[in-house]
Amino acid sequence: MATTTLSGQEFNRMQFESLLKKRFFFTESFEIYRTAPNYKGDNRGLFDYGPPGCALLANIVNEWRRHFVIEENMLELDCTAITPEAVLKTSGHVDRFADWMCRDPVKGEFLRADHLIQTVLETRIASSRSASADSKTKLDESTVQKYEAILAKIDNYDGPELGKLIKALDIRNPNGNGEVEEPTAFNLMFKSTIGPRSAAPIFFRPETAQGQFLNFRKLLDYCQGSMPFASACIGKSYRNEISPRSGLLRVREFLMAEIEHFVDPESNKSHERFSEVEQIELPFLSKQTQLSGKTTIETASIGSAVRSKLVDNETLGYFLARIYLFLVKIGADPKKIRFRQHLENEMAHYACDCWDAELLTSYGWIECVGCADRSAFDLTVHSKATGTPLTVKENLPEPLEIVEWKASLERKLLGPRFRKDARKIEAAIEALDQDSLEKLAAELAEKTVVSVPTAETLADGKTMVELSGDICSIKKVTRIENTREYTPNVIEPSFGVGRILYSILEHVYWYRPQDTAREVLSLPILTAPTKLLLVPLSNHPIFKPVVKSLGSRLRSMGIANNLDASSVSIGKRYARNDELGTPLAITVDFDTMKDGSITLRDRDSTTQVRASEIQILEAVKSLVSGSETWKEISQRLPAFTGQAQGT
Amino acid sequence: MATTTLSGQEFNRMQFESLLKKRFFFTESFEIYRTAPNYKGDNRGLFDYGPPGCALLANIVNEWRRHFVIEENMLELDCTAITPEAVLKTSGHVDRFADWMCRDPVKGEFLRADHLIQTVLETRIASSRSASADSKTKLDESTVQKYEAILAKIDNYDGPELGKLIKALDIRNPNGNGEVEEPTAFNLMFKSTIGPRSAAPIFFRPETAQGQFLNFRKLLDYCQGSMPFASACIGKSYRNEISPRSGLLRVREFLMAEIEHFVDPESNKSHERFSEVEQIELPFLSKQTQLSGKTTIETASIGSAVRSKLVDNETLGYFLARIYLFLVKIGADPKKIRFRQHLENEMAHYACDCWDAELLTSYGWIECVGCADRSAFDLTVHSKATGTPLTVKENLPEPLEIVEWKASLERKLLGPRFRKDARKIEAAIEALDQDSLEKLAAELAEKTVVSVPTAETLADGKTMVELSGDICSIKKVTRIENTREYTPNVIEPSFGVGRILYSILEHVYWYRPQDTAREVLSLPILTAPTKLLLVPLSNHPIFKPVVKSLGSRLRSMGIANNLDASSVSIGKRYARNDELGTPLAITVDFDTMKDGSITLRDRDSTTQVRASEIQILEAVKSLVSGSETWKEISQRLPAFTGQAQGT
Repeated sequence: MATTTLSGQEFNRMQFESLLKKRFFFTESFEIYRTAPNYKGDNRGLFDYGPPGCALLANIVNEWRRHFVIEENMLELDCTAITPEAVLKTSGHVDRFADWMCRDPVKGEFLRADHLIQTVLETRIASSRSASADSKTKLDESTVQKYEAILAKIDNYDGPELGKLIKALDIRNPNGNGEVEEPTAFNLMFKSTIGPRSAAPIFFRPETAQGQFLNFRKLLDYCQGSMPFASACIGKSYRNEISPRSGLLRVREFLMAEIEHFVDPESNKSHERFSEVEQIELPFLSKQTQLSGKTTIETASIGSAVRSKLVDNETLGYFLARIYLFLVKIGADPKKIRFRQHLENEMAHYACDCWDAELLTSYGWIECVGCADRSAFDLTVHSKATGTPLTVKENLPEPLEIVEWKASLERKLLGPRFRKDARKIEAAIEALDQDSLEKLAAELAEKTVVSVPTAETLADGKTMVELSGDICSIKKVTRIENTREYTPNVIEPSFGVGRILYSILEHVYWYRPQDTAREVLSLPILTAPTKLLLVPLSNHPIFKPVVKSLGSRLRSMGIANNLDASSVSIGKRYARNDELGTPLAITVDFDTMKDGSITLRDRDSTTQVRASEIQILEAVKSLVSGSETWKEISQRLPAFTGQAQGT
Repeated sequence: MATTTLSGQEFNRMQFESLLKKRFFFTESFEIYRTAPNYKGDNRGLFDYGPPGCALLANIVNEWRRHFVIEENMLELDCTAITPEAVLKTSGHVDRFADWMCRDPVKGEFLRADHLIQTVLETRIASSRSASADSKTKLDESTVQKYEAILAKIDNYDGPELGKLIKALDIRNPNGNGEVEEPTAFNLMFKSTIGPRSAAPIFFRPETAQGQFLNFRKLLDYCQGSMPFASACIGKSYRNEISPRSGLLRVREFLMAEIEHFVDPESNKSHERFSEVEQIELPFLSKQTQLSGKTTIETASIGSAVRSKLVDNETLGYFLARIYLFLVKIGADPKKIRFRQHLENEMAHYACDCWDAELLTSYGWIECVGCADRSAFDLTVHSKATGTPLTVKENLPEPLEIVEWKASLERKLLGPRFRKDARKIEAAIEALDQDSLEKLAAELAEKTVVSVPTAETLADGKTMVELSGDICSIKKVTRIENTREYTPNVIEPSFGVGRILYSILEHVYWYRPQDTAREVLSLPILTAPTKLLLVPLSNHPIFKPVVKSLGSRLRSMGIANNLDASSVSIGKRYARNDELGTPLAITVDFDTMKDGSITLRDRDSTTQVRASEIQILEAVKSLVSGSETWKEISQRLPAFTGQAQGT
């Protein structure tokens, strides 16, 4: 997909990714083994972060913790990745956490079915549109529309449907053009066993959520029973992707940051702080739009989206707005963010509503944050599987007087009269709802006998029993309830940190107009790996003491800085740090030795100011804390144009 | 082992651990599944950290990053836990990363052999010493000494030796007293496969080190070739322990923080900053002391320890001192730290020297940090396995003129004269060292013929060949070398963060003398999960606005605080936070509403001061930053003795 850089230039992914590798933002894991003799491993989808990538990751995680956990007093947990099979059996992952894959019997390759269709159809559309298209590759407009409609809802097909599409559209493995076999389900979890017996299967978690659900009771105790509350967990998860591609976007080991917000389902899922965000305008791609085969984005305030029921409830809406603010703050381009609603088949069967925050990259729109209303599903299934109540018991503000119909059976007569059917009749009476009871009460009063349907067949082969008034009475009774017990619903915002990191790097990338090789990563100061480059004009020993003392002063101010006293030209050193996304540079030159003044350079504009050490350090401090912008600084401090500015 | 609390009281581990669980520092993972019907999983050795544990962990990790990574400009990496089999085959883990276990055929239990011996011998010694010892349990002094000598070097035995001890000392499974089978090796890594083929085995890493070694070339490039340098990695590692016990101390999934310091072996492993630490006194338990069956700790400055060669080199010594400073800073009791040198069998065969920082707990001395000189082992084996040079090439400051003896063979004559032996003779000449060459040169000058030994047997059945001057010449030649190539050695400080966390919690635990149930965790402000408790005197609505504004002011100062406006007594709320290790509390009462003054309480002394909001917030700031102590604050601000102080 053709995207443009921050400054509207054509985006060249090869050049961009080679920059990230050159500056060691990341690298393929175990790369030196790939070319080792007789190596048979599969390194795909495994990446290591180098020093700048690691610092960027840490800065994103820290801001996440501040923006969500600390701001909302969430309860952070650190749960194990190792998870017993029983837990993931309950959650449905053992049976259903799978992708559909097709085997190409000739090449011996395994392909993810939906990705295969996507690649082939996108290629067909692109070839048809290319200038060199001939009668064979040219598609008529209706075919293009059909393909685009399929692509728009590609996540909506299950395995058999994908199989039908592959047959109907004659989709083949692009590598060799061979036909592929029927899609089969492949479970994406890494399996192992624990302990010396090898009898206890475990999985490495595919998400951090289960650990949070299982600790629900302890969390509720910890926050002294006050609802709603949220837990959070940051940690690695593992998915055995069939055929990872797309660099950092589809990996087998990745950092997740997940929130589980527990809420009373009878609260209307309203949110205390919703008014703080309701004016924020968000870009939506609704379910309806997608099902009509379109991808038009509609902008609306989150307030109106919740009112119109486009977004199911306030809590979900609150998180969508907070996610948007977070993404923009850490460097995402607001024009490259959208919220896409899940289609029915794509959504877990228990979820009420689900939205993905997607970021536009050269790989297309990428799901970076999922935000789902999972209803009471998780707590209910784990509670059932373990026999542990995962509920909230609340004292009612006032005792509740409940008037209701109640049926009672005269057991002394029931047994002798109905023998083996007695239990079935008891169950039938138990199963009656208030409406039925009211009707039967009237019938009983009138006829002194009632007919009650039974779920199980009785000895006489019927599923209906007649009960007389001596054995069955139905009366209106009053009972007092002091507490209310309920299973909370869960709203789950779930962040793929690596995907966010990669997408943001694409968003902040551009190159100086005068030279495509002069690349810049305009990361915000907040997330930039290093805030400041410290450079002496040359590696002359005279600069050493000043530079050393500046370095330790900056460190004591808590500002991550990087000294480059190498012998290459100052322009080259600036350029290297533009590529690392370092927003500021302090330069020490011969004038510094005379008057103590130093210069401060802005990465994006390459302009510089010159002032005393104290003034410059103060400027750095207010830039880093966000209290001043470069524009403000450059207006109040004298400009400097003396040296190579690395433009 | 009997230990005492911070204030010298008897330490009760049951009470201590139940406090940690009650306050949700940690919990057994998947606890609600343990009692689930038909559950067959093995949860042992898996723990989740709750909110205070998680915050304590994060604070320790942050301080680690500051103390080591930032202070020394280390290059931090984030490497995958998933590791291809080939990598761990090279490193030796596939073949050797195992513990010895014994099966009890009757109980069907698996026991770690060294732990079995340890438990049984410790029990025998304890029974012998107990007041109720009879002639059967009473041991003579020489037996006790023998047992203690075995215990002192329990890590020095391999599997067959452990088997012999078990037989010789008639050691049986304490559960049922059954005899156990011969020890067998059990590999401790979790194995799985990657990709849809199941043909590519992987392990979940047992340490973070390998990822750092494999990225050596990229790291060297990143720091522009300057040696020495260090990389660092913080991340989860996994070990399938045979039979985990000892709570948080022996777990199957744990956080490690590891440093790989790469150093030129010809630099004498000296360290630029050694002079900054050489005066620091450290408690040592040397190899010699242990082999003599003793555990006496000797205190010496790290400077003198390196000079006396007790510690092999300055770099290793520098890290031991820095580790000590780190442990004390985050809360370890200096009296409960020792550095134990590894015994020969315990140390990897390639290591030159290895020291463990051990912390004393109720489980005994626990290895919390390992600090090994791994020589050039890791880089050498990975380089050999992959064919990738993992070396440093340095330009020599001045070209080196090397004068050396060189032998050359006249190939035109060699082939015809020696036929099949020619290759063997060439190899023999290649293998000659300078001394031999010098001797042979003299021989040749004198006799015009030399005898050269061959490694392989020649056609005539001899391993010596006579070469005449026409075919072999030996001369002094001069060559110029401009670069030097070498494989760096590695010093590896490796931290088990969970073990450190647990040990420190034991170190800071005590209870108020007047009431054993009034427990306190005297964590330093630096690592305390929450710095400050914010309490209104009661839940009267009048206090709400003041408390809210104080909370947001503290948050903007970056001080993690916790509001407790629940209806329980203020003493109970103080006590709850003493148990959470919260060092400070601000209280808002009716006087606050009159004159704006608030009180500040110190957890350890339970004393309070009262002053204006501005003064108190300033005091909090200087306490949190470490610029003032409570003693200083309480001397300059007026004492307050009005309310329940939670003493």
